[in-house]
This record gives sequence, structure tokens and C-alpha cells, in this order.
Amino acid sequence: MSRIAVNKRKIINDPVYGFISFPYESNFRLIEHPWLQRLRRIRQLGLTNFVYPGANHTRFQHALGAAYLMSQAVQVIRSKDHEITEQEEEAVINAILLHDIGHGPFSHSLEQSIIEGINHEDLSLLFMQELEKEFQGGLQMAIDIFTNKYHKKFLHQLVTGQLDMDRLDYLKRDSFFTGVTEGVIGSDRIIKMLNVKDDNLVVDIKGIYSIEKFLIARRLMYWQVYLHKTVVSAENLLIMMLKRAKDLSLTGEKLFGSPALSFFLNNKTSISDFYQNNRMILDYFADLDDSDIISASKVWAKHKDPVLSFLCSSLINRRLFRVELKKTPFGNKQIDELKNQLMDKYFFSEMDMEYLIHTGELLNYTYSSMDEKIKIMKKDGETLDIADASDIFDLNALSRTVKKFYLTYPKQLTL
Amino acid sequence: MSRIAVNKRKIINDPVYGFISFPYESNFRLIEHPWLQRLRRIRQLGLTNFVYPGANHTRFQHALGAAYLMSQAVQVIRSKDHEITEQEEEAVINAILLHDIGHGPFSHSLEQSIIEGINHEDLSLLFMQELEKEFQGGLQMAIDIFTNKYHKKFLHQLVTGQLDMDRLDYLKRDSFFTGVTEGVIGSDRIIKMLNVKDDNLVVDIKGIYSIEKFLIARRLMYWQVYLHKTVVSAENLLIMMLKRAKDLSLTGEKLFGSPALSFFLNNKTSISDFYQNNRMILDYFADLDDSDIISASKVWAKHKDPVLSFLCSSLINRRLFRVELKKTPFGNKQIDELKNQLMDKYFFSEMDMEYLIHTGELLNYTYSSMDEKIKIMKKDGETLDIADASDIFDLNALSRTVKKFYLTYPKQLTL
Amino acid sequence: MSRIAVNKRKIINDPVYGFISFPYESNFRLIEHPWLQRLRRIRQLGLTNFVYPGANHTRFQHALGAAYLMSQAVQVIRSKDHEITEQEEEAVINAILLHDIGHGPFSHSLEQSIIEGINHEDLSLLFMQELEKEFQGGLQMAIDIFTNKYHKKFLHQLVTGQLDMDRLDYLKRDSFFTGVTEGVIGSDRIIKMLNVKDDNLVVDIKGIYSIEKFLIARRLMYWQVYLHKTVVSAENLLIMMLKRAKDLSLTGEKLFGSPALSFFLNNKTSISDFYQNNRMILDYFADLDDSDIISASKVWAKHKDPVLSFLCSSLINRRLFRVELKKTPFGNKQIDELKNQLMDKYFFSEMDMEYLIHTGELLNYTYSSMDEKIKIMKKDGETLDIADASDIFDLNALSRTVKKFYLTYPKQLTL
Amino acid sequence: MSRIAVNKRKIINDPVYGFISFPYESNFRLIEHPWLQRLRRIRQLGLTNFVYPGANHTRFQHALGAAYLMSQAVQVIRSKDHEITEQEEEAVINAILLHDIGHGPFSHSLEQSIIEGINHEDLSLLFMQELEKEFQGGLQMAIDIFTNKYHKKFLHQLVTGQLDMDRLDYLKRDSFFTGVTEGVIGSDRIIKMLNVKDDNLVVDIKGIYSIEKFLIARRLMYWQVYLHKTVVSAENLLIMMLKRAKDLSLTGEKLFGSPALSFFLNNKTSISDFYQNNRMILDYFADLDDSDIISASKVWAKHKDPVLSFLCSSLINRRLFRVELKKTPFGNKQIDELKNQLMDKYFFSEMDMEYLIHTGELLNYTYSSMDEKIKIMKKDGETLDIADASDIFDLNALSRTVKKFYLTYPKQLTL
Repeated sequence: MSRIAVNKRKIINDPVYGFISFPYESNFRLIEHPWLQRLRRIRQLGLTNFVYPGANHTRFQHALGAAYLMSQAVQVIRSKDHEITEQEEEAVINAILLHDIGHGPFSHSLEQSIIEGINHEDLSLLFMQELEKEFQGGLQMAIDIFTNKYHKKFLHQLVTGQLDMDRLDYLKRDSFFTGVTEGVIGSDRIIKMLNVKDDNLVVDIKGIYSIEKFLIARRLMYWQVYLHKTVVSAENLLIMMLKRAKDLSLTGEKLFGSPALSFFLNNKTSISDFYQNNRMILDYFADLDDSDIISASKVWAKHKDPVLSFLCSSLINRRLFRVELKKTPFGNKQIDELKNQLMDKYFFSEMDMEYLIHTGELLNYTYSSMDEKIKIMKKDGETLDIADASDIFDLNALSRTVKKFYLTYPKQLTL
Repeated sequence: MSRIAVNKRKIINDPVYGFISFPYESNFRLIEHPWLQRLRRIRQLGLTNFVYPGANHTRFQHALGAAYLMSQAVQVIRSKDHEITEQEEEAVINAILLHDIGHGPFSHSLEQSIIEGINHEDLSLLFMQELEKEFQGGLQMAIDIFTNKYHKKFLHQLVTGQLDMDRLDYLKRDSFFTGVTEGVIGSDRIIKMLNVKDDNLVVDIKGIYSIEKFLIARRLMYWQVYLHKTVVSAENLLIMMLKRAKDLSLTGEKLFGSPALSFFLNNKTSISDFYQNNRMILDYFADLDDSDIISASKVWAKHKDPVLSFLCSSLINRRLFRVELKKTPFGNKQIDELKNQLMDKYFFSEMDMEYLIHTGELLNYTYSSMDEKIKIMKKDGETLDIADASDIFDLNALSRTVKKFYLTYPKQLTL
Repeated sequence: MSRIAVNKRKIINDPVYGFISFPYESNFRLIEHPWLQRLRRIRQLGLTNFVYPGANHTRFQHALGAAYLMSQAVQVIRSKDHEITEQEEEAVINAILLHDIGHGPFSHSLEQSIIEGINHEDLSLLFMQELEKEFQGGLQMAIDIFTNKYHKKFLHQLVTGQLDMDRLDYLKRDSFFTGVTEGVIGSDRIIKMLNVKDDNLVVDIKGIYSIEKFLIARRLMYWQVYLHKTVVSAENLLIMMLKRAKDLSLTGEKLFGSPALSFFLNNKTSISDFYQNNRMILDYFADLDDSDIISASKVWAKHKDPVLSFLCSSLINRRLFRVELKKTPFGNKQIDELKNQLMDKYFFSEMDMEYLIHTGELLNYTYSSMDEKIKIMKKDGETLDIADASDIFDLNALSRTVKKFYLTYPKQLTL
Repeated sequence: MSRIAVNKRKIINDPVYGFISFPYESNFRLIEHPWLQRLRRIRQLGLTNFVYPGANHTRFQHALGAAYLMSQAVQVIRSKDHEITEQEEEAVINAILLHDIGHGPFSHSLEQSIIEGINHEDLSLLFMQELEKEFQGGLQMAIDIFTNKYHKKFLHQLVTGQLDMDRLDYLKRDSFFTGVTEGVIGSDRIIKMLNVKDDNLVVDIKGIYSIEKFLIARRLMYWQVYLHKTVVSAENLLIMMLKRAKDLSLTGEKLFGSPALSFFLNNKTSISDFYQNNRMILDYFADLDDSDIISASKVWAKHKDPVLSFLCSSLINRRLFRVELKKTPFGNKQIDELKNQLMDKYFFSEMDMEYLIHTGELLNYTYSSMDEKIKIMKKDGETLDIADASDIFDLNALSRTVKKFYLTYPKQLTL
């Protein structure tokens, strides 16, 4: 643990917060590590720039931003007479720097196609454990905080919880870069209102309206950005493209691709493979970023397989599929009709249909009643669930999961 | 009706919206009228700058801002194929320019003290009618829109309604100048979503999240600014000071004051006096602004009446009274105890108590179910109350009036 | 000297910088003093709101803002290994809080009319000396820093110099509230680049472009705001109105006014009077603010003296005089012609002319070569005048005083 | 030419300007064309995100932004009674949409390595001519404006000139995304001040301070962003990497790469090849974007050639070379010493040196006296060069080219 003198710290210019910096050498050592540098090449919001052209910010920017908010939160909580040692400060900043390190390019799409069934949280932990070997003990406390094994539970909640620095940063950052200014949250004020009670992260009662607004802004960002129907359409197209590419590869077809991409196309990989082949598969994964997928898809757009080339050229040239949203599932009859049209018009086969017409569901919950609650602390020290402290929300409604069904299909067809 | 060529229009620099301008000569003629210029001398938020030092913006700025938003709204609604003639455009801009012209200095405080029982809406109309004489017919349509007698009802709703240009401007402006950034609303986007259905102002369904956020932001501004307890304390102090001054004046005591202020101190004035003494009283009222009250209160702070001087010096030097908030009324016992303390310590008499200890109630409703509703229009043209269209709000809660009771008393006392 | 724990500090919401706070009890004690509270009632930019309606910010806001920047500057300089003790930090913050305390309402206009020949710097010092008595020694170091008697000269330069916290705040604040966004300076970055060399405030070489931009922005603000011709016209009108009022008063005419205003109207006051009548005159002065002038001018607008009433109603209703700008002085012939027109048309007498037609000069220097220079420090520690360090400016031009002549006269006349 | 009704226009959310839109169908048809969509995959500032992590905005965003400013400029100029027909408006917007279409990935680096000697202006014109075939006459006027063959010369100046919409957008956009807030220009106000005199674009005299600030901001952006030494280092690394890859390819070595990248690695291509092989080479070029370079460089980082792998892994992992800046050229002695060190330490050969140690020059001119001047128009219609109109700049200095020499070499070495 080595704290850097204030004027020796490297200053980074962030368009969201201005000049930011970090207090410990290990923070910078991590930032300079190839695995964190790799996040420069992965967009935070995947294909969202198809709808919001400004949304080109990266997971690297988000990691820095969340770590900056963490250092602010630590000051605030300390000023309210809760001890956070220097070592804990260093560790919790490192934990948030690393919390998303397991993300691959177009994370959610990948997890539904070429690395099916593998989620980024597991991979983040794997990466951290490998890094810990390099850092020779320097990251163990960060890992313990991340996995909630550290005895001060509120530190974990700052990394992962209903009001963690991850969310505070990404909501603010995503609204900044998309230009959806209504999503802007008062992260400044929320952090000033953070406190700790019985080892739990709580919010001082004065901050209740900021929390209400945070929940509403989050909800707005969900519908207006994260689950925007055109974004859903684009991501589905990507999933179907990758699925087709993998299915072709598994039958022996040689597709253009970087070695890392080719590895995941040519092999069915499960999380246990990651655990067993320590490093080899992880290194392949660490070599993957947005550029491999994009560069390959342009080449595949000229492939002789009509399904693959159709999907790729649609994606690359932003000829997105039509998407319908409904509160109830789409019936087979509708879907069959679309399939028939598609087979009639374009001579695609029945077997191609699963790559061209797709239905699924979208979930949005503003506030989960399953997870740990956002706790409001009254002046007398009593804590309440935001659900009970706020007099405006129908918390049943607030915590109810909203489900919508979507159906995507090529634009030339008519429903 | 005379439209000004675009490049001939006077451009005004507004820190909130940037460069703004108005299309009609009558708009500018009104802006230059002494009665509108007078609004330069009346702060929009009265004594709120005691809490938020930046809140020095004036009713004049607000009038311009609301009129600017109106001209934007007219463009949007026209672009959706609803006719608004040039004459109507001119009139509706004039109506919003004038909607607050009846406000006096520290409006709500005055209405509870020296011009008790007279509200600014009535006065606004009186001013408009006088202006109409000067404009010789040029303002009649504006008056009809303001009073909801014009056949296109949605024009009135743009001036006065749950989603009028008045609110859109003041929420945005007040949050800008107080620095309460969380109160910022997406007026831009809301206006883009305005539409008209069956002669009613509605919001396109795509704007629903912006409306939710508008309601939450409004609520936040209420508790954090408009009903901030220190603001409540300051305004009560002002009310009590003016009451004392008036009561002394009515007993024949000569207090320093401008002729306009003296008139209202020395005379019990009712709204019917305004109607009957056409112009004389109105002219006195038009001569009043913040400066008369502030200048006089500094002089009164040295008056021999101990109650008046105590109230005035407390106000001028920002030695505000303590304020307590509760959900239930304050009991007589508590109040009596405070009175006794006050009489003991400072030799005030029982009769002075009504000027020094004060209890009252604060009301906050985010969305009134009594008033006209905010209507959301679905893609098929059907309209819904926001209460039904939104799946998040407990609209009962949303439209429930929140009532709090306050008690103010000099800081030296203890409850 | 008593430092306040971080979480006990009162937080103030400033629209320019966000949440601000101060570290010492004496800082807050000063802020709460009636003499600083009085600055809430004095607009920073006088009548500039006639041109920029948003320019209603007060000297109080500016004092807080400059003090906030000072606390930032202290951190930066300390982090570069220059000692600033806690006592010095407290004193230099107090010095900047008080630096403008001697300003009266419409400062520059007053200094040219009813308190002719008295400047606010002298009064600021007088106020500080009186406060020092109250604070019993607690302000002496602040006074020494203000008067440049303290041995660490760079502390004085932070309060008064070419790059002091006063300028950094007012440029940023004035551009924020006028909406002249181009005047915005990077105060953040400039402060980060401050350093000390041989007891002089210097700027690290990396900040040179920020300084260039600061100088250009300052110049832009001068021409676009501070010396805007309409502002010049309004201020002249005010000066002439106050002169007329004083001249009438001195002949025995009783004009409406608060006791404080009346005192200065009825008495010729020189700075030596202030020194000799310790407190009495100072207290009168401390009672004066914008409201006295504005409230009185409305009353005077109905006075029987045609010159006074004409000037007052012109001011109050913003019927500003025409203003001409030239690089050379206006000739007597032109002026005489205007006078003749005015006497012909309105039956004003020759003696009235000095209150109605006025000529004078405007000075603007971006960077004074007379004053201490802005010093740039190279990496090797050598310092250079910005004039020599910058390769863009013609520093002769930059430091050349630009002089313009103006002539104002009632709008109905033609030149 | 087909103008779209206001409410039918697609609205795009731009974080810099808010909601933007375009008036003509051809504007949207161009935006949707694969060649413009391709600009989504090319970062505007190449490797600048190594220094400013926010600088991930694309050439696509810039094209939209510049086109938006163009539509604003057209309104302003029309409002000053200069005719711009609808057809001209459509054409000049299309011209600016297309002005950068010839940029490849990491444009300046590519032009110094694998497509040496080919500049993007020539390619832009080639692309436009191909598009014109598709649009069957619809783009001829846009091309004529772009190439300055259209009789209204000021339209060309809006596309390419000292004050064109290209510059206004990129300065504002680059400062927004880098977070270098001091580079922000008042594009709003500058556009409001545009005018036309004798068929030349001029600036109304009232805008002179905005122009001064524009020039200073531009200069600041050059030194702080475009020529930032770390950016220079990164771009040199990229150039050297691509040169090495090409040189290896030309000797028959097969390197991983997409077909498009491989084509340019394996073939010496000149601009005449583009002209002669109409479409084939252009199509290859249109297939290239950032992803191909980045994806390949990760693969090459494991290549057996030590020079290539060293360069690639340095780039990918941001282990940038040291860079020195001087006002005079670096001597051979210094360079030789570095080479010797490098050969000693790492067993690189003499022939490898040209890829590892590099010297060159940086040029910065704020205002070119060679190009057309920025003309200021006085109120009497007379026009002046900004050099003569401004009293602050030493225009000789302003228009003097500042040249600096740089030397880059691996960090492990010492100079």
C-alpha cells in the first residue's frame, strides 16, 4: 500500500467529472495493466450508438469514473465518523476498478451466442484471481470486498448494491454520452448523503428526494436507452449473426477471424473450461474486443452463406430489422406467417428461420424488492426501506418487474 | 398584428436558454411597458436567496422565458398539423408574458399581510384590462385565452394548466438559479412531445417518461426549495413584520415608507377597492416592488416599537427564527410554553405574541387530481390520464396532498 | 483559529461551482455578519441587468465564490510543497471574503455622484478595521495580507493581483449570469497551475494557454458586458439622477429617501469625514443598498423638478438615453447642437444641460504593464512575463489601454 | 429535391447540440448510405483517447454536427436578405455531410504509411463522384460547391474556409469529448454573426471578440489536444507499426488481416490506381475502418518478427514511446547514441532502427495568412481582415507558423 502525494498524482481529464485522480500506486498500476487497457476497446453500450450516435464511450472510462466516485464516497463516509483505513480505501477503489473486467465485447450479445452461458461476473473474478498472483497479495482485500467476504459489508455494497458506485457512474455517464439529459442523476448529492448504519450503506433522510429521482432516472434510462426498441433490434441481429457464424464454424466451415475470435467460434466453451484451462482460454478471451467482431462481420458480409451474409450486411450498414413490442407473447400463427413470407420472397429455408425471425422478452425493474433494499436513515438513526420512507411511490409498482415481448424480423416483411 | 422579420428581432441573452427572441411587435411593446419592466424589480423567489444565494432571478426573466417556451410550443403543435394562426400565436405569447403581471413584491407574503385576501390572478386580469385600453383592442384575444373564453381551449392550457409554459419555465429556471440541479426538467423534450387532441393539450406517449420525471422534479423542487424550512421561516418573518407594520400604521403610527407602501399600510384594501377605484389603487400597486419593502424594513429596524424592530433586524440581518415541522398540528401547550419563555426573557407582552410565534401549514401536491389532468395520447389517438398511463406512480399517492405543520419562534427559545 | 470538522461545515449551493463550504469558524462568523449579509442587497453588476436580464447576482455571491476559489488555491499551492499554515489559510480566506465589503450600491455610479471621490478600497479597509475590533485580534493577519504588509507576499497576490481569486470568480460568475458563455474561463485549470516562486505567485508553463484564454475572455467581457454601450448609458443616467438629487438637496429641497440615503444627499462627505466620524458615517453607509436608490427613484419620478423626474422615470422605465461611441473626443459643436434641440423641444434651461447630456471616456486594458505581471514559470524554474512567454500576443497591443469616448443624450434628439 | 415536413423529420439526439434534424430527403438518404455509416467505425481523433479517454467520438458524429451547423448558418444568412434557394440549401448540407467521407481509419497515420501519398480530400471527391452516379444528378451541385465551381462562392466557404462549419463543429465537439472545456467556442454566436458581402462570407463587426476567442481556442486545442506530445508519440508508433507491416508484406510475409487491410499491405497503391481501377480499390478502401487495424495489431503483437511484435504490443498495451520536443532539429549524434543503446540492449539490427526511433516536425498555425482571410464587416459595409480589425493580436505572430521538432524512442532508453 503506497499512497501518492497529491501533486504527484496523474490527472485524467474526464468530460463527465472534470479532472480526476487516484490516491494509490496500485490504482495506477491496475489502470495501466493490459487487461484494463483492453477495456478502451470495448464500448460500454455496445450497439447503442446506432440510436444515439454519441454513445461511443468505453468500459475503460466507466471503470475510471466509478473508481473516482468511490474515492469521493470514502471521504464522505469517513467524515461521518465511520472508519475506513487507507488499506481499505485502496482495496475498495481497486475492487470497483476491476468490477467489470470480465466483460467481453458486446457483452450481453456474446453471452447469448458464442460464449453462451458464461457471465461476466464469473470472469471478472477469474481475472482478479490471476491479477492477484501478479500483485502477490496486493489484491486479496479487493477480492474479498468484491465477493462480500470482507467483514465490513458496506464496502461491498459500495461496489455492488442498489446504490453502488457502478450504477451512479453508468447512469450519469450513459445519459451524458447519449444526450438523454433527463437521465442525469445527482451523483454528487447522493454521495454526500451516504452514511453507514450497523455496517450497512444507508442514505441520510435529507437525500430522499434525490433517491426518488435516481430511481425515476434509472427507469427512464432503461426504456429510453437500454431497452430502446432499435437497440434491441440491433443486439438481436448481432446475436443471430454470431450464432450463425458459430453454427457454421462447428460444421467445419472456416470463417475469417482473429485467432481469439476463431477459438470461440470453433469451440464450445463452458465456464468449467475456463476454470480448467487456467490462462489459455482466459488469454484468448482477453484478446477479444469490439474490433474483432466488427472487422470479421464486414468480411462475413461477403460470405457465400446467404443467411450469414444477409445478417452481416444488415448489421454493418445499419439496415436493422423491424421490431414489435407487446405486453403478451407473440403467437405462433403470426410468426409462421412471417416465416412463410420470408421463404417465399427470398428462398431462405425453414432451417434458416431461427436466425432471421426472433422473439424474446425484455425485463425492466426499477427497484428490486428481492435484492437488498435502499435504506433511508432518519435523524434518530432508525432506518427504513425507501419503499416505506417515500410517500410517492407505489412501491409495489416500483418493484414490479415490467415485462415486454418483442419480435424482430427483416424489414421487407409485413406483419 | 405585425410580425417582425427574423433579422430585425431584438435578441435577448438568457442564461437558461441562450439567445431568445419574439416574433411580434406587440410582444416587444409589452416587454417595454413600465408594468412589465417593473417585474425586473421583483424577485421570482422572494426570500429564497437566504437559503440559495443564487436565487436572485426576477419575475421579468421568468416572463420572457415562459414566452420563449410558448413560441417553441406553437411551432411544435403547428408541425403536427394543428392550426394556430399568426394572430393566435401573437395572442398566446402576449397572454403568457402577462400571466404574472399582477404579482407584487414577495407575493405570497404580501397576500397574507398588507394586501390580505387579494390574489395576483385577479390583479393580473385587472392589469391586462387596463393595458387593453392602451393597446386599443390589440390584447383582447390574449385576455380571452387567459380567461379561457377563447374557443381553442388548448391555447388556454398552454398558459394555465398542469403542463403549461409557466411551470415548464419556472421549474427549469428556479433549479438553474438555486443550483438544485436535480430539479432540472427536460422542457425541450416535453415541448417536442406536446400535441393536441379534441382541442385538449396532450402529450405523445413517447414523452411519458419525461412527464414522470417532470412530476418528480416538481415534487423535489417543492420540498427542497419552495417549502424549504428556512425559506418558510424567512417568509413568516416577513409576513409578521408587515402585519405589525400595518397594525401600527392603522393605529396612526407614521412609519417610513414610499408613498405606495404607505398607502397599503395606512388603508385596509380589498379587491373591490381595486375594482372601484380603477387606476388609483392599481397605480399604487404598480409602484410597489421589492425595494420598497427592503428599504423600509431597514429603517423600521431602528423603530422604537420593540416588536417591529426585532422582526425587522432579524430579517435584514438574516437572524431567522427557528422552524419546526410536523405531520400533526402543534398543541397549545407547547405554544404557550414558548410564549411564556418569550415574555419572561424579553419582556414582550402577551399581545405581541401573535407577531413572534406563528404556526401554520404547508401543502404540497405533485399532481392535482382536482385540476385538469395531464393527458397522454397513445399512437392510436386514444388519450389516458398520466395516472393510468404510467405504471410506476401510485397516483393516489401522487395526487394526495401532503400537509405539514410548522411552528416558528425566535431562535433563543427552546422547545 | 478554529477549524471545523468536514462533516460539520455548512454547505452552500452555488449555481456556479456546486456545493461549496469553508473550513474555519471565523469564515462563517464573517459571512453571518450584518455587513456581509448587506452584500446580498447589492447587485454585483449594478444596472447591467438592463441589457442582460440574468445579471442579478449579488456581491454576496461573489464574495463566497472568491473565498471558495481561495480555499482551492491554498490546497494546490500546498500540494506543491509551499507552506501555508492553517492560520494563514484562515486569514487569506477572510481577506478575500472582505475584499469588496466597502462597495456601496451601484458602486461606480455612487463614487461619481453622491459620495464623490470616495473609493471602495478605502472603505473596505475601514470596515475591516472596525470588524477587527469586534473580532479582537482575529482579523489582523487578514488585514495585513489585504494591505500587503504580511511577509508572504504571494498571499496578497491571491487577493489582489492580475490573477487573483477576485478576478477568477467575477469573470466566471458574470459570464454565467449574463449568459455570455464565451467569457467563461477555466478557473479550475488556472488554479491547478498556480505555483509560488521566490514568494511570487506564478503559473506553471503548462497553463500558458489557459492564461492566454483568460486574458482574451477578460477582454471580451469588458467590451461585451462591463463597457457595453447600453450599460454605459444606464449608469450615466443613474449618475446624473443622483447628482441632480444631491444638488437639489444641498439647496434645501427635501427629497424622499431612507435616512441613510438622505444623509449622503444632504451632506458633502469626504473620505476624511469617514475617518474622523468613526462609525457614524460608516454606519450610514452600511445601511445603504440598492433598495434605497431604487425605491427613492420611483418616488422622485413624480417630483415637480422636471429634470429629476425626467431622469428618474427614464431610468425606472428603462427609457435609456442614446449613446454614441467614438475613438476621438466629441466636439463642442455637436454637443451645443444637442443642447439647443433639447432646450427648444422641452423647455429645459441651459443649466439643466449638465444633467441631460453627458460625455466621458471608457478605458479598457486587458493586461496592465504597469501593475505586477503575470509570471509564467518554466520547468527549470525560470520565470517570464506572460508577455514574453506567449508567442501569440502583441503584448504592446495587449497592454495598451484602449480608450473610447461616449456621448449620451435623450433618445428623442438627433445627432 | 424534396423537403420533409418538420414533424416528419427524423430527430437525432446529439450530446453537443441536443435534438438535431435535417430538412431534405437526400440528406437522410446520404446519412443512411453505407459509406457514411462506415464513418461510425472511424474515430474522429484516432488515438487521442490514449490521453483523453473521452475522445471516442466518430467522424459520423462530426459529419452530422457540421451539417446541423450548416442548416443554422443558412437560416442566418437568409435572414440577412441574401438568397439561398432550397436547392442550394440542400446541396450545401450534402456537401458538408460528405466533406470528410474520404477519411480512412487513423487518417493521418495511414497517409504516412500504407497508403502513402494519398490524401483524404482527393478520396472524398472520388466517393462523391461515385455517389453522384447512384443519385443520378442529385449531388452535382453539392460537388460543385465542394470543388468551388459553383457561382456562389460563399457556399464553398461555408464548407471549406477559415471559418467553415467543419471547424466550428470539430473544435466544439473535440473540446466537449476530450473534456478540454477551455477549447469550447461560441459556435452559436459566431453563426449568428455570419453575413455575406460581395459573395464572400464575412463576420459582422459585433462578432469580432467571438472570432478572437475562436482563434485562441483553436490554438489552445492544437497544443493541448491535436499536437499533445503523447498523442504524437502514439500516432508515430502506429505509423511505424504499419510501415513495418507493409514492408514485411511486400517481401512476401503473410500477415493476418481483413481482405481490405491485406490489399493495402500487399500492394503499393497510388492515387492514380484509385482513378484507374474505378471502384475496386475504392471499395477496398471503403471496407477499411479502425477495427481492421486494431484487430490485426493484436494478432501481430505475437508475430515472430521482433520489430513488429514490439511495436504492436507497445501500441495495444499503451506502452508509448518517450517523446522529446524542441524548437531546433535533433542532431545525428543524439540519434546515433539512442540507436546504439537500442542495438546493445535488445539485439535489434541497424536496419530496424528506422521503425523504432523517429524524428519529425509539428506545425501549428492559428491563422494562415496564405489562405483566404477571415473578413470582418463594419457597419458601413466595409470589410477588413481580422488581422487589421482586431487591436489585440500581433497578426504577424498569429499567422506565423510555429514549428517544433520531435524525437520518439522506446521508453527504456535514455537521452
